[in-house]
Amino acid sequence: MPAFDPRRHLIGLQDMPRERMEGLLHRAQHFAEGHDARDALAGVAVCTLFFEPSTRTRLSFQLAAQRLGADVLGFDASTSSTSKGETALDTLRTIEAMGVRGFIVRHKEDGAVAELAAHAAEGTSLLNAGDGRSAHPTQGLLDMLTLRQAKGADFSKLKVLIVGDVKHSRVARSDLHALRVLGAGEIRVCGPASLLPDDDTLRGCVVSHDFDAALEGADALMMLRLQRERMEDGLVNSLEDYHRDYGLTRSRVLRAAPGAVVMHPGPMNRGVEITDEVADGPESWVLRQVANGVAVRMAVLEDLLRR
Amino acid sequence: MPAFDPRRHLIGLQDMPRERMEGLLHRAQHFAEGHDARDALAGVAVCTLFFEPSTRTRLSFQLAAQRLGADVLGFDASTSSTSKGETALDTLRTIEAMGVRGFIVRHKEDGAVAELAAHAAEGTSLLNAGDGRSAHPTQGLLDMLTLRQAKGADFSKLKVLIVGDVKHSRVARSDLHALRVLGAGEIRVCGPASLLPDDDTLRGCVVSHDFDAALEGADALMMLRLQRERMEDGLVNSLEDYHRDYGLTRSRVLRAAPGAVVMHPGPMNRGVEITDEVADGPESWVLRQVANGVAVRMAVLEDLLRR
Amino acid sequence: MPAFDPRRHLIGLQDMPRERMEGLLHRAQHFAEGHDARDALAGVAVCTLFFEPSTRTRLSFQLAAQRLGADVLGFDASTSSTSKGETALDTLRTIEAMGVRGFIVRHKEDGAVAELAAHAAEGTSLLNAGDGRSAHPTQGLLDMLTLRQAKGADFSKLKVLIVGDVKHSRVARSDLHALRVLGAGEIRVCGPASLLPDDDTLRGCVVSHDFDAALEGADALMMLRLQRERMEDGLVNSLEDYHRDYGLTRSRVLRAAPGAVVMHPGPMNRGVEITDEVADGPESWVLRQVANGVAVRMAVLEDLLRR
Repeated sequence: MPAFDPRRHLIGLQDMPRERMEGLLHRAQHFAEGHDARDALAGVAVCTLFFEPSTRTRLSFQLAAQRLGADVLGFDASTSSTSKGETALDTLRTIEAMGVRGFIVRHKEDGAVAELAAHAAEGTSLLNAGDGRSAHPTQGLLDMLTLRQAKGADFSKLKVLIVGDVKHSRVARSDLHALRVLGAGEIRVCGPASLLPDDDTLRGCVVSHDFDAALEGADALMMLRLQRERMEDGLVNSLEDYHRDYGLTRSRVLRAAPGAVVMHPGPMNRGVEITDEVADGPESWVLRQVANGVAVRMAVLEDLLRR
Repeated sequence: MPAFDPRRHLIGLQDMPRERMEGLLHRAQHFAEGHDARDALAGVAVCTLFFEPSTRTRLSFQLAAQRLGADVLGFDASTSSTSKGETALDTLRTIEAMGVRGFIVRHKEDGAVAELAAHAAEGTSLLNAGDGRSAHPTQGLLDMLTLRQAKGADFSKLKVLIVGDVKHSRVARSDLHALRVLGAGEIRVCGPASLLPDDDTLRGCVVSHDFDAALEGADALMMLRLQRERMEDGLVNSLEDYHRDYGLTRSRVLRAAPGAVVMHPGPMNRGVEITDEVADGPESWVLRQVANGVAVRMAVLEDLLRR
Repeated sequence: MPAFDPRRHLIGLQDMPRERMEGLLHRAQHFAEGHDARDALAGVAVCTLFFEPSTRTRLSFQLAAQRLGADVLGFDASTSSTSKGETALDTLRTIEAMGVRGFIVRHKEDGAVAELAAHAAEGTSLLNAGDGRSAHPTQGLLDMLTLRQAKGADFSKLKVLIVGDVKHSRVARSDLHALRVLGAGEIRVCGPASLLPDDDTLRGCVVSHDFDAALEGADALMMLRLQRERMEDGLVNSLEDYHRDYGLTRSRVLRAAPGAVVMHPGPMNRGVEITDEVADGPESWVLRQVANGVAVRMAVLEDLLRR
């Protein structure tokens, strides 16, 4: 049992009821078709509270909030009074007291956003924009929206392949939770042993270290970003080796099922986990994912903050 | 005689007529009850011009301006063309020329905001968001609003105790001015000799170095932040010593008058000038102060900028 | 032939038809008189995308976009995912995919904005806010608007003198293009040989190294900023020497034609290329240029982004 109200906050996807997730995706699809709802959050103040920098995600949330008519504020916690020794919780409480009702929070530490949510004032909602390796729920949702657009709402026949550094990826964890909630037919995970988690993250998945084999018959290829730190950590020999074994090339795309879609959360390491040809090719839904990100964030903000 | 028009700018509280201060507090109370005035400054551009960083104060002003319908811009003067050698005055004049009518200015140096106000273009208003050790007038006003909410509008019977590093505190100076304007019954000041000013800042105050004695019968305890630099300056031996002598604990709160309120401008050094128990306890009006900050800033911005 | 559509983007002024430039200036004059057009870009998202920092120009565009009712976002490319190795083009495409239609782009490298424009998605417009030494077209347009206000719309009798570091100045290049498009009577250029370009930048100009002689009869004096790096580069001996030879003093202004106007793109190096007396004197149109900057940017944004 979480110590926070899961209807008031969005912290992760593992416990979200299927009908709620489908409701959010349905509403997000509406926004993805270009509809705005400028009155939905008129007069509501929303604040991005990033303890770890990320311009892309911040912009996406900001656009979503603007299209709902909200007032959007930014608090860059890496350069402000947290450096004066203020705790994250005091920062949250202070901005709450100013009348801000929605917080979009990113934090380096696993569980930090849930912890803040458990202590938030009544009437405020927290939205996890990424914490540690744990969760990035709006990324999970936008990936599901993209899959639905590409393959239809019934995931029961779908073979989804997630490739790369699952161990350190909050994106992968949120995707895995969402795919289970929506009943994906088969979830395959592929990557070097050093980058796959050995806990129950991969329960129910078909795990493989052989990319070419794993590709056979896959309907969706979800590529993960390889952080360059993994080499310094000794988990990967070289970018060249990684690319040879796990880089998505045109010829590898052809091994997958006909009409397979290619996805990546961005920013892409072109030439490492994906080639230019694939990133910019007809199978790539990468920019569609970005567009869906705004739509999904609109749906979540509206759901949590509309009075 | 100041070289700027005190009705057009808010630089300090020392010369503000009592009826004007009470008018602002009356209007701020209206905003504190949740009312917006989205038409008041519609189409008016307001710029935060911070030569010293402060996220909390900037956010509070930004929220206030948004609730009045203004367009809000931010100019972080520590990272911009001032580093190309432009003077603060040229920066001000340039942004004025762009059509910005209200400036919320913070500066490290005493008197810097007054100096800028004296040279501002006709039709623009400057609002001091803190200069050196001199003044932080909206903090003074929000503290007065908080006192009124807690103790009523008649300050003549009130015993107010200000504790800590008054010497380096613009908050304390603005509080002292405001308390005098509003006719507070008794103003007590307490702190180590090294942190109390020896000029006329404390005129009319009851000064003490004995915190426990000073607490007796006090109706409001205004705690100040202890900057960690004071130790490096040799003005304080250690945080432990400071906490022992001037830290507000639960048992010390009990020495004050029944119903005494605890205030702090934030961010708090928990465990130094105030314990967790008091900061988060029923006597604490700290978050109410933060909420009142937005209301007071709305009242001031509306007063100065409404055509 | 450029690889981008010159009606969709504003990259430079060299190929702009005279009637289009005059149309933009006419519309800008309307905005300079204080008119807003809050419905023009309502619901349109505009993003400043600065790969080189500049607060003044960013604020000016932001104010312009707000007065047209747009949603304005900021992407500071020097502190964000470009540092994760993302290319400028991927950054652009990502923000485009979020639904942003207008991009205000500044970049250190010559031609970088044109290059991005050539690859922009259908339906988005790029506006060059300065690239390398090449172009700063809205600065050129605002200078023309200022000249029109001071001297009337017929430039055919006008003698314009540009003074200083033309070699490294995108402002000068855009001014030169605009003056040619509008048919300026005589364009004079003056500066030390080390700071004048030896390519075809100055074609058709009267070039001189003798400031006092060049001033005779000039109707407009366009002073350029001397970057301090020029001394380190060995292109200028000292600020004192530069001021003696090319600094605009009161007595030098008197050598020019009666009613000559003084212009400077800012920020000014007071005491180097211009004295306080001239910068703040009656001949100075410097703040008027700043005001015109917002008006010109409104005209351009409206022209490019109104559906």
